[in-house]
Amino acid sequence: MVLSEDALIARIGATARARGLVKGIGDDCAIYRPRTSEDLLFTTDFFIEDVHFRRREHDAASLGRWALARSLSDIAAMGGTPRFCLVSLALPAWADEKWFAGFYRGLKKVAAETGTAVAGGDLSHAGKLVCDVMVCGSVAKGNALRRDCAKVGDAIYVSGPLGGWRNRQEIVPRLDIGRKLIGKATACMDISDGLSLDLHRMTKASGTGAVLDRGLPVLEGATLDQALHDGEDYELLYTAPPRVRVPGHRIGTIVKDRPGRVTFMGLPLKPLGYDHFRR
Amino acid sequence: MVLSEDALIARIGATARARGLVKGIGDDCAIYRPRTSEDLLFTTDFFIEDVHFRRREHDAASLGRWALARSLSDIAAMGGTPRFCLVSLALPAWADEKWFAGFYRGLKKVAAETGTAVAGGDLSHAGKLVCDVMVCGSVAKGNALRRDCAKVGDAIYVSGPLGGWRNRQEIVPRLDIGRKLIGKATACMDISDGLSLDLHRMTKASGTGAVLDRGLPVLEGATLDQALHDGEDYELLYTAPPRVRVPGHRIGTIVKDRPGRVTFMGLPLKPLGYDHFRR
Repeated sequence: MVLSEDALIARIGATARARGLVKGIGDDCAIYRPRTSEDLLFTTDFFIEDVHFRRREHDAASLGRWALARSLSDIAAMGGTPRFCLVSLALPAWADEKWFAGFYRGLKKVAAETGTAVAGGDLSHAGKLVCDVMVCGSVAKGNALRRDCAKVGDAIYVSGPLGGWRNRQEIVPRLDIGRKLIGKATACMDISDGLSLDLHRMTKASGTGAVLDRGLPVLEGATLDQALHDGEDYELLYTAPPRVRVPGHRIGTIVKDRPGRVTFMGLPLKPLGYDHFRR
Repeated sequence: MVLSEDALIARIGATARARGLVKGIGDDCAIYRPRTSEDLLFTTDFFIEDVHFRRREHDAASLGRWALARSLSDIAAMGGTPRFCLVSLALPAWADEKWFAGFYRGLKKVAAETGTAVAGGDLSHAGKLVCDVMVCGSVAKGNALRRDCAKVGDAIYVSGPLGGWRNRQEIVPRLDIGRKLIGKATACMDISDGLSLDLHRMTKASGTGAVLDRGLPVLEGATLDQALHDGEDYELLYTAPPRVRVPGHRIGTIVKDRPGRVTFMGLPLKPLGYDHFRR
């Protein structure tokens, strides 16, 4: 890389403006002035070469989009609206100025679509590309959707077809659906590690079990195994009392059972989704 | 690693409680309820094996302390009080459960000393250890110390002796000094990339020059070159009108000059501090 850190930071350029963002890129910290009416949501997600993606399979702009969309999906899962992000990026030797510009072009595009300001971050070098994106979102006070409040008798939904992570380079974070679920859903999370593991986590946190006794919406070409266990789906998984009208596909029911126990078509479903340390 | 992600997260255990933290580890996002009287500060810093540290030179607890202290130094530089952090950690094969426990023991110790809650983060694997720590701090509304407000005629100070990064494994973030500077200092930042580069950045952002015409406080055993250019000092660099009493060592004066130009003992001082892409 011929450019200095300061020059690279200057290349990132202007991004979406965020309400409340007093100071973005350029000081030791970004400064945000909150409103009394809001709770703030914070999430961070790694995006690492040869762990989350292979560089030869995706262009720089797709990777930039993906890196931010992953974190935006967590904001969607809480019913929030994204405000700003901090982007930490460690660049290997192969990532030249052109790649850097492309990555930020993709990232800033999804940032602009969702009203997310790029407020800062960190730059470093590394043997393989490492990106870590922190997003701050906001939600009306007390209204955040949590994963630990599913109730026995609730219907279980997913926001869209599953099993398609290999087919999709452009994740669309389900921010609109998340916001629509406020005041309706009892529990909500995003499916980032696969339905079987994430539903296990939701029911364990809620002290309930679950039965999946309806057809799963599955993307064309995906197998049942992929729909049940593959990560990187980024659809929302949520529960609501059966009489409450919510968008999405009903896939089952929350039941009284050992916390975290899920059955699919009458058989126990193991939480086989993606785990970084058990593979 | 024999443990699953969920089991590792459970091992992190309880941390300092933060005022306003409605939900910490365990959901898609942490939830923070801000006060109207505060501005919030956000910073994130990488800490990467063979870039920022070599694992054989430091035990796990020292590295955990160091990883969080780096980011706390940025909160100190704005005059803030830390509230919570998000810790992203990608573990290589050599980092076993014992190392993980030690790392979090060191990190949680400095967290407890400074009142910083560990509110979440991300876990992954990687070829080399990568840590990225985001800290949220707070400061009374409108009171954050910035780097771009130094004024011609201001005295320039550092909070302690420079040039010692190789001698110190235990950084003490200068949170107390930062808070004392509120209402007194005109500009402030931390010295993370070396005095010559960071003073260049401060004066460039402020549209001024600077002269260093007093002796520099230097750690025993450090050379002048190390005091001027070495990174990882984590002392504060700040300016104040000469009649305002502030703690620290006066090292020079802000002058009218080309923005970013610094002279030392009458000669131009090049910004040679640490840059990830120019070495």
